[in-house]
Amino acid sequence: MVNYQERLSRTFAALVDPTRRAILARLEREGGASVSALAEPFAIKLPAVMKHLDVLDDAGLIRRSKVGRTVTVELRPGPVREAMDWLRRYERFWSRSLDRLTAYAESKETEARKRKP
Amino acid sequence: MVNYQERLSRTFAALVDPTRRAILARLEREGGASVSALAEPFAIKLPAVMKHLDVLDDAGLIRRSKVGRTVTVELRPGPVREAMDWLRRYERFWSRSLDRLTAYAESKETEARKRKP
Repeated sequence: MVNYQERLSRTFAALVDPTRRAILARLEREGGASVSALAEPFAIKLPAVMKHLDVLDDAGLIRRSKVGRTVTVELRPGPVREAMDWLRRYERFWSRSLDRLTAYAESKETEARKRKP
Repeated sequence: MVNYQERLSRTFAALVDPTRRAILARLEREGGASVSALAEPFAIKLPAVMKHLDVLDDAGLIRRSKVGRTVTVELRPGPVREAMDWLRRYERFWSRSLDRLTAYAESKETEARKRKP
């Protein structure tokens, strides 16, 4: 069994490559696509696209199914949600930073008002 | 200037390593820490920690400042927010999948009810 930290590492590693991100973005827009349709917009050859799909599959980000001679690729949102949840803590940090900034600005304003006669 | 796609790649690459994620998580909890304090809980040597900090700094995820002989490390939330925004589309996909599932379940229920005398 792959543990939580290993899954996170695999997900982030899969997301490092811009071609893999473009594949995921397209699957998100279109719901699913054949391997040959996915390969079309890229300047890279089909075997290179297949390798990227292997990485995405190993990370659990896509699911491939074969009907006849056509391999269809679909998104699997689970691991991406785990990565999102991990990143969410920084959103909390960001909100706290903004809160502190607002509190600081308000205290300065109150001070300035007190100083005025 | 580093463009958007390059920044995303750097951010995700920085997040692949569990030690770097642990450093970021600690900075998020504590707001800031000295390099030596950050290195303490890890079984790795200080130069290895420094290398991880270089990667985080290059990706724009942390800021280092030196006062006397102490280097303090702080989080910079900008690039993480960009990565979050990129991942958010999958949250939309996930919600749509759930919506479709709910709609399907409801239509089956209605069908079953119609069939009953």
